[in-house]
Amino acid sequence: MLVDEVDSYGNFSGEYHTAVSSAQKPIEPSPLVGSQHLDEDGLCTFGFTVNWKFSDSTAVFVGQCFGEDSREEVLQTSWMLREKVDSQHNDWKATRVGRNTFKRVA
Amino acid sequence: MLVDEVDSYGNFSGEYHTAVSSAQKPIEPSPLVGSQHLDEDGLCTFGFTVNWKFSDSTAVFVGQCFGEDSREEVLQTSWMLREKVDSQHNDWKATRVGRNTFKRVA
Amino acid sequence: MLVDEVDSYGNFSGEYHTAVSSAQKPIEPSPLVGSQHLDEDGLCTFGFTVNWKFSDSTAVFVGQCFGEDSREEVLQTSWMLREKVDSQHNDWKATRVGRNTFKRVA
Amino acid sequence: MLVDEVDSYGNFSGEYHTAVSSAQKPIEPSPLVGSQHLDEDGLCTFGFTVNWKFSDSTAVFVGQCFGEDSREEVLQTSWMLREKVDSQHNDWKATRVGRNTFKRVA
Repeated sequence: MLVDEVDSYGNFSGEYHTAVSSAQKPIEPSPLVGSQHLDEDGLCTFGFTVNWKFSDSTAVFVGQCFGEDSREEVLQTSWMLREKVDSQHNDWKATRVGRNTFKRVA
Repeated sequence: MLVDEVDSYGNFSGEYHTAVSSAQKPIEPSPLVGSQHLDEDGLCTFGFTVNWKFSDSTAVFVGQCFGEDSREEVLQTSWMLREKVDSQHNDWKATRVGRNTFKRVA
Repeated sequence: MLVDEVDSYGNFSGEYHTAVSSAQKPIEPSPLVGSQHLDEDGLCTFGFTVNWKFSDSTAVFVGQCFGEDSREEVLQTSWMLREKVDSQHNDWKATRVGRNTFKRVA
Repeated sequence: MLVDEVDSYGNFSGEYHTAVSSAQKPIEPSPLVGSQHLDEDGLCTFGFTVNWKFSDSTAVFVGQCFGEDSREEVLQTSWMLREKVDSQHNDWKATRVGRNTFKRVA
């Protein structure tokens, strides 16, 4: 996940590089947009949407930053992945859920 | 939920008016940013982040549009709400999950 | 969903009849086991596990009873459906999430 | 988590010892009931319900066993925790979601 600069409202954009996919097509880096709070303690909650380039699915992540200064910075997130289904009858099975921990790459 | 124009990449922004809150402060309209696929069949998946103005929480919604033309347009969404916690020890309890159905207001 | 008698610990068993499935095999009624609190106000939380007969998946439901007396009784539940995957590498995509509302059949 | 013997239908009961709680009362071991598939490859999905003794909440876990033989046995689970709320108006905020990994204690 590459995040460009966060603007003064907390909005940001970037690119998500995933290693896994349930789609058939080759994986490609995909654009993300989101926003975060700007709390001074560094324990900000945030969320972002990933618009997968290689599928018609969409993912959202929501989480919080931890350990801003001395300790290693960690992002604890939960995500939901929405698959496209052909009708509301199949809506029940469209949403997967999981967890991801991100660490800063030096 | 008010969504401004969707750009040619599928990105959009808007404002979310919620009726409910677990925060103590008065509810205010809050900004949202997100993106959607641009499939021609109108059954697009999408996601967006709401940066609550009246709390340090963040919500993400992910869903799909149904019934573009003849029938009433419906957005079926799942959401997660992330509360700010003071340490990773309390991370386990920070995420709520739910469902929302949106219909177009004439 | 048919629930047999609840014992004095709040444990119960029964049978779940679903109308939908992502498995290939014909749908069959499947056994469920669970437990509930026994609060006197009737607003009890509960949970149960469904061991699908026609697939190697398992579902869990968690929810609460509402409107015991005068108004119609309603069970508001959230569920997760776990599919079997062949290795931990595919664990990320194994869990779906959703909501179900149950009403008593006269 | 202590699980007693699994019966020939895959049903089991046991006791859950948690280290964390959002309730005010002291934590106590709490009874669990659930069921699992009995696949011969050891990659069984399972689910169980925990009826918290120290609160009026209920939790459900759903997951899968991995690494039965040579490698260390691991249970990958997702959970939902349902809090009691006083009316359907507050139902939206009653459900938390998370992940837990369990390893066998020698």
